[in-house]
Amino acid sequence: MDEESIGYKPIGVIRSPFVKTEDMPIQPAGARGVKGTVELGPEYAEGLKDLDGFSHIYILYHFHKSSGYSLTVTPFLDKSPRGLFATRAPKRPNAIGLSVVRLDRIEENVLHILDVDIIDGTPLLDIKPYVRQFDTAENPSSGWIGKSAMTPEGVRSDDRFR
Amino acid sequence: MDEESIGYKPIGVIRSPFVKTEDMPIQPAGARGVKGTVELGPEYAEGLKDLDGFSHIYILYHFHKSSGYSLTVTPFLDKSPRGLFATRAPKRPNAIGLSVVRLDRIEENVLHILDVDIIDGTPLLDIKPYVRQFDTAENPSSGWIGKSAMTPEGVRSDDRFR
Repeated sequence: MDEESIGYKPIGVIRSPFVKTEDMPIQPAGARGVKGTVELGPEYAEGLKDLDGFSHIYILYHFHKSSGYSLTVTPFLDKSPRGLFATRAPKRPNAIGLSVVRLDRIEENVLHILDVDIIDGTPLLDIKPYVRQFDTAENPSSGWIGKSAMTPEGVRSDDRFR
Repeated sequence: MDEESIGYKPIGVIRSPFVKTEDMPIQPAGARGVKGTVELGPEYAEGLKDLDGFSHIYILYHFHKSSGYSLTVTPFLDKSPRGLFATRAPKRPNAIGLSVVRLDRIEENVLHILDVDIIDGTPLLDIKPYVRQFDTAENPSSGWIGKSAMTPEGVRSDDRFR
């Protein structure tokens, strides 16, 4: 395994109504209709051309409020401890966050997005188009999350992943 | 914008039949049935608990064979130049790759996966469960890719993104 460190640089910042890690929606599915913006560095704005044809995008970001990790976690949607990689918990060896959000419109270097489950001020790492033929799994089974009685619509975050 | 560099460390390596960047499938949709493995560092194996209940996973990785980027690119699936962030091209400001793959089985620290469109030896950054309620966009429109006459099934990579 290559142990060399990889350096990334934020290319923008994510703006949302959520200013603290507690009492946040825990996934876009729990943040239906919540508006936010992605403020891309103006020097990258040229790269947004053609993106407005996509209804959904991936945003990749750094969980800047999290530090450290544990390989077993009790996620917000469950009462049982689970393997970290079977969860979307923010405290990970590489604290990269991934959300599928709806793209409302683009104004120069600013993307207006919906279903935002991300804390205000989060550093942006990448934007990718969501492509049905690449990204929609056929008949996915969702393990413990599919069996959980809790749904993101009814659950908010607390301080456990700070 | 936070200009501070973020350091990540590979947590494993991706193994596939593809040893050079040319003549590769360009997305999992073009690599249907291709087998590969994710060799997670044994020190992280505990974090795989419960993942075997998921039929699909995200793997996040570093495009280690790419360097530099251009904000306008001509993707494999098109003849027109497109904004970088409207493509999945590997040469990006932060060269993070994202694939949805099928999970066949897990043996200790090794994940056997299907639909692998990734070059052998790629450094692994993260594994996340694919969750229908978080990750399946409703009625996505896929911009220029939806309109392209080319499909991943019929297209292979060349050297343009090395």
